[in-house]
Amino acid sequence: MINIGVIGYGYWGPNLVRNFAEASGANIAAVADLDPKKLETVKRRFPAVKVTTDFQDLLKDPDIHAIAIATPVSTHFELGMAALKAGKHLWLEKPMAETSLQAQKLVAEADKRKLVLLVDHTFIYTGAVRKMGELIRAGELGRIYYYDSIRVNLGLFQRDVSVISDLAVHDFSILDYLLGEHPIAVSASGTNHFPGTPENLAYITLFYESGTIAHTNVSWLAPVKVRQILVGGSKKMITYDDLEPSEKVKVYDKGISFTDDPKQIQEMRVGYRTGDMWAPRLATTEALRLEGEHFVDCIVNGKVPETDGHLGLRVVELIEAATSSMRGRGETVYIQNKRKAS
Amino acid sequence: MINIGVIGYGYWGPNLVRNFAEASGANIAAVADLDPKKLETVKRRFPAVKVTTDFQDLLKDPDIHAIAIATPVSTHFELGMAALKAGKHLWLEKPMAETSLQAQKLVAEADKRKLVLLVDHTFIYTGAVRKMGELIRAGELGRIYYYDSIRVNLGLFQRDVSVISDLAVHDFSILDYLLGEHPIAVSASGTNHFPGTPENLAYITLFYESGTIAHTNVSWLAPVKVRQILVGGSKKMITYDDLEPSEKVKVYDKGISFTDDPKQIQEMRVGYRTGDMWAPRLATTEALRLEGEHFVDCIVNGKVPETDGHLGLRVVELIEAATSSMRGRGETVYIQNKRKAS
Amino acid sequence: MINIGVIGYGYWGPNLVRNFAEASGANIAAVADLDPKKLETVKRRFPAVKVTTDFQDLLKDPDIHAIAIATPVSTHFELGMAALKAGKHLWLEKPMAETSLQAQKLVAEADKRKLVLLVDHTFIYTGAVRKMGELIRAGELGRIYYYDSIRVNLGLFQRDVSVISDLAVHDFSILDYLLGEHPIAVSASGTNHFPGTPENLAYITLFYESGTIAHTNVSWLAPVKVRQILVGGSKKMITYDDLEPSEKVKVYDKGISFTDDPKQIQEMRVGYRTGDMWAPRLATTEALRLEGEHFVDCIVNGKVPETDGHLGLRVVELIEAATSSMRGRGETVYIQNKRKAS
Amino acid sequence: MINIGVIGYGYWGPNLVRNFAEASGANIAAVADLDPKKLETVKRRFPAVKVTTDFQDLLKDPDIHAIAIATPVSTHFELGMAALKAGKHLWLEKPMAETSLQAQKLVAEADKRKLVLLVDHTFIYTGAVRKMGELIRAGELGRIYYYDSIRVNLGLFQRDVSVISDLAVHDFSILDYLLGEHPIAVSASGTNHFPGTPENLAYITLFYESGTIAHTNVSWLAPVKVRQILVGGSKKMITYDDLEPSEKVKVYDKGISFTDDPKQIQEMRVGYRTGDMWAPRLATTEALRLEGEHFVDCIVNGKVPETDGHLGLRVVELIEAATSSMRGRGETVYIQNKRKAS
Repeated sequence: MINIGVIGYGYWGPNLVRNFAEASGANIAAVADLDPKKLETVKRRFPAVKVTTDFQDLLKDPDIHAIAIATPVSTHFELGMAALKAGKHLWLEKPMAETSLQAQKLVAEADKRKLVLLVDHTFIYTGAVRKMGELIRAGELGRIYYYDSIRVNLGLFQRDVSVISDLAVHDFSILDYLLGEHPIAVSASGTNHFPGTPENLAYITLFYESGTIAHTNVSWLAPVKVRQILVGGSKKMITYDDLEPSEKVKVYDKGISFTDDPKQIQEMRVGYRTGDMWAPRLATTEALRLEGEHFVDCIVNGKVPETDGHLGLRVVELIEAATSSMRGRGETVYIQNKRKAS
Repeated sequence: MINIGVIGYGYWGPNLVRNFAEASGANIAAVADLDPKKLETVKRRFPAVKVTTDFQDLLKDPDIHAIAIATPVSTHFELGMAALKAGKHLWLEKPMAETSLQAQKLVAEADKRKLVLLVDHTFIYTGAVRKMGELIRAGELGRIYYYDSIRVNLGLFQRDVSVISDLAVHDFSILDYLLGEHPIAVSASGTNHFPGTPENLAYITLFYESGTIAHTNVSWLAPVKVRQILVGGSKKMITYDDLEPSEKVKVYDKGISFTDDPKQIQEMRVGYRTGDMWAPRLATTEALRLEGEHFVDCIVNGKVPETDGHLGLRVVELIEAATSSMRGRGETVYIQNKRKAS
Repeated sequence: MINIGVIGYGYWGPNLVRNFAEASGANIAAVADLDPKKLETVKRRFPAVKVTTDFQDLLKDPDIHAIAIATPVSTHFELGMAALKAGKHLWLEKPMAETSLQAQKLVAEADKRKLVLLVDHTFIYTGAVRKMGELIRAGELGRIYYYDSIRVNLGLFQRDVSVISDLAVHDFSILDYLLGEHPIAVSASGTNHFPGTPENLAYITLFYESGTIAHTNVSWLAPVKVRQILVGGSKKMITYDDLEPSEKVKVYDKGISFTDDPKQIQEMRVGYRTGDMWAPRLATTEALRLEGEHFVDCIVNGKVPETDGHLGLRVVELIEAATSSMRGRGETVYIQNKRKAS
Repeated sequence: MINIGVIGYGYWGPNLVRNFAEASGANIAAVADLDPKKLETVKRRFPAVKVTTDFQDLLKDPDIHAIAIATPVSTHFELGMAALKAGKHLWLEKPMAETSLQAQKLVAEADKRKLVLLVDHTFIYTGAVRKMGELIRAGELGRIYYYDSIRVNLGLFQRDVSVISDLAVHDFSILDYLLGEHPIAVSASGTNHFPGTPENLAYITLFYESGTIAHTNVSWLAPVKVRQILVGGSKKMITYDDLEPSEKVKVYDKGISFTDDPKQIQEMRVGYRTGDMWAPRLATTEALRLEGEHFVDCIVNGKVPETDGHLGLRVVELIEAATSSMRGRGETVYIQNKRKAS
């Protein structure tokens, strides 16, 4: 049984506590939050769980094997580093840190101490994304031409992070998982419509060495909620609508074809191919449950998380690059440290 | 009765001929095309219309008052200039020219000769776009925060122009019509997935001095067809789905509110407002019919077309800027000649 | 504070307990269920609530003012009657009884003892149905021509009641609320596809003296889930899609018009009118919360519930009539006791 | 080359003329209509086609091999019989006659003279219906539990026939094609909301000996247009949405399962199965083209049309039965002459 201490019981923390309380192999040992009222809520729901306003109590507790951190991003580095230095395995909310430098240090510390570091990019554990990954890796889509995502709705405006850290971060992790390739350049544009607040709308393009192009459109200021991804390959194409109650992922046997004859290409003699559409059944296990049990499995069996610190770091690099480009009105930002995705 | 000669009977020409044949006040006098087979089709459908493989025959004909040009873009300048020099009013397919320099010359020539020059940006004549313009100009939406458009489908790949000239051109003209403001900068990214062919996918952001931001996502390589626009204002927001058979335009009484208190903004105490939704009845006159009769009206009564050469020129400037930015991976391109939209 | 005892902690009971626990003015005093395991769950979640396997304990408890019954339909009459005879106000799950005779007796008993009897037809307390009622009563729709409903999905097959009691019952209560008129005749068809089980699919038409016609299509055997109602009036028409996350109710300014001239009608010179569409904002209070507080209000202030026993009885009459018609392959069944809806 | 004479150039006639003009193997020889203005239109579009106000001219013309009749239903019998007696093959608009007796006489006359009699039930020639037929006949759906159709929209109100003859007729022909079984009983309800006009709304249930149940909901008075069919089988289920631009037909690997154990059925231990969804590519040939060439093929090669007079007669029987039941408020009407569908 892995004993877990949770730091932060605000927006996401209660989900973590509920999840680890029910995940097999895990046990919630203690919860820390600065707000005593929130700790009362914990106490009422989970009488056996220790509560404290001092996170150090969790780090000092030798019975606690792992720490899960669900606090504001600005505290991730300090808290995460303290947890690792206390010898605890670490579950970190996304994005894992404010800067890629911080993220690198966390990764290095975890590696040095051989501790499990999982960054909570939950989408990677959904049935939809896993099925898409499976299809892509099996070559069903052929060469990936593009990935095009829309994540827009009204709110929730955030104080400390822009819409890139809030929403585009999902696409960055999904892309890393699906493509296994790190972008070489980023161009982003966006704006804040309310002075003194973070950007609430952004358009981000990612360029890959392989020729794949990815784009995400994120906004807190749309009249309708949209969560839609298109993935186009040389053989097949996918739509993924996360708001559909069923048949979220659809695979279209559609595409275009040129022959090898360069003259045909010149003359744009394009063949349009339209075949069947197919919506595969998706696994229905809750993503957070799968992720929680994966974390336990990594700790117990010395495995590397699917969303490890390296993935988390690559995501932070993209947030940095996109933010920098956005502030330069789309200026191309090249990814310095061209790491290969796992 | 305005006698019209049509040059080019390929993809769009037949629509022009059919339209002018039925528009009140207009008469199709002659059709020119290099392909005699196409002329036979004209003859069969419209026995009274003269046909010729030499467009000069139309320019020389003193009974022809106006020329409509529906040939490939690369010929627009030469043919259009010849028509103007022959003293004919001019209807030009979009985009009006390959370069902004050519477009400027056409505009100047038409102005000098006091000839009507209409560029066929058909969307401006649809009930949906006109209703949106009406609402925006009446202040119903408040300050315009953003315009966000998606135009994707499978094909038709074109040989001579990129997807920007083919599809984004619609957003450029609609934006000019809706906002009455010309962008100050452009950032675009895009790619061609097939070497030796024009770009088949592009993402374009337009920046405006007023703070409005516009974006269009265009592709010939999507498994599904989408034609969707969001317009967000400080008071209301609009969705426009051109594929809906009815209720294409929906007006949402939705938004967010900060008070003037800067501290509230700092703390992101955002109010989310959700009221009624409303889909106004749209005029059902065919856009091309309205546009055709508007052209006749401009000629007869000396009016300026709603989609005149100046608008056409501004659109060509945006195509140039977007194309340039796209080839620089999103590099910001500033619009030199910051013309105010009419 | 009204103390409530809940009998039955199966499928719906937990919703009642959670709801009354949070409704202002109400207090959950005790829960009875035959299954001790279910009572353990109650105890864990609500340590202060008394639990018992004997419902008589609740009836005998002088501190309990009202009983809510969420047991199988076959027990409603016996349990409900016992509660009333013990002087308790009564909340009864729908349908209120197996037969209209039983329902009549319950109504009479409650009336005699001046006890509140609320039948849990939850839909009547939703923002959508209330808005529709408001529009209809304000004359916005004009004369009601028809009501047409679809409630289909895969499952849940039930052992003791047919799909009419499970799903059509919603339409019967909504119709009663919207029209304030009781049907004069019913024709229903339906079938069970699995011998020895209740009917899993039914089509029911209700005829009204005013000329209104109503229809509901209910099924446990559909590949997709649909919850859609059309209401057509002489002035306007409504669509209500309960699965839409927002804009559930849409009001169409559409219709047809004959003039008074009988010759026009003869020649079917019909005018089709299409105006704006409008989706009113709906109240977002949870229906069950509104209903729970309404129950308390009725007890405290001697009011009559909007879904009182008379409405519940009319619904049972329709279930009986529809079931009888269905077993006669659509044979017209006239409603004997033509009661006027309140 | 089969020479065809068309009688009636009103609503549907122009489609027939255009279609036969382009169908391979067919030639439009002459068109008859009582209205000289309509004949002028024919003349303008098809200068080579003879026109006449006297249909007898077509019957007398020895060069005409076949007659297509697109006149009001009330004239089908007289005109159709005259054409057959003149030795012409016959294409009849649906429904083929006003009464089943008339339809029987037409069938008998065509059989006696060995003339091709095709009733224009166009839906049978669509890619969607043919694919559904293919899947059902291949046993993909298993035993057919139900067929459930909705055909509603605003208008067109008709003077001489009810909404059953106008819209439900499509379901009657599709059912005949898909099931190969004729119903044994019908229950229908419906009404006309405008005195002195035909019924504008109807709900019809068809009962089959095999246990299949079919239902269609047709209306000229709905605020939205719907064309949706569900077909449920013991193995798979289908949705067919005719208004979808693509993926009209979707096959769901969904269902429920009882084991053979009668006790399980008693206790409603139902298993719900949800697998993949699949949208097969549909043939895109225009239905009317396919039907026209099929008509020619039947004449030339002595084949029996897929929508022959026997099918047309069975459809008329169902219209009669449904109309009779509707006027008796759902009274069960048994199909006297229980013919087996081909």
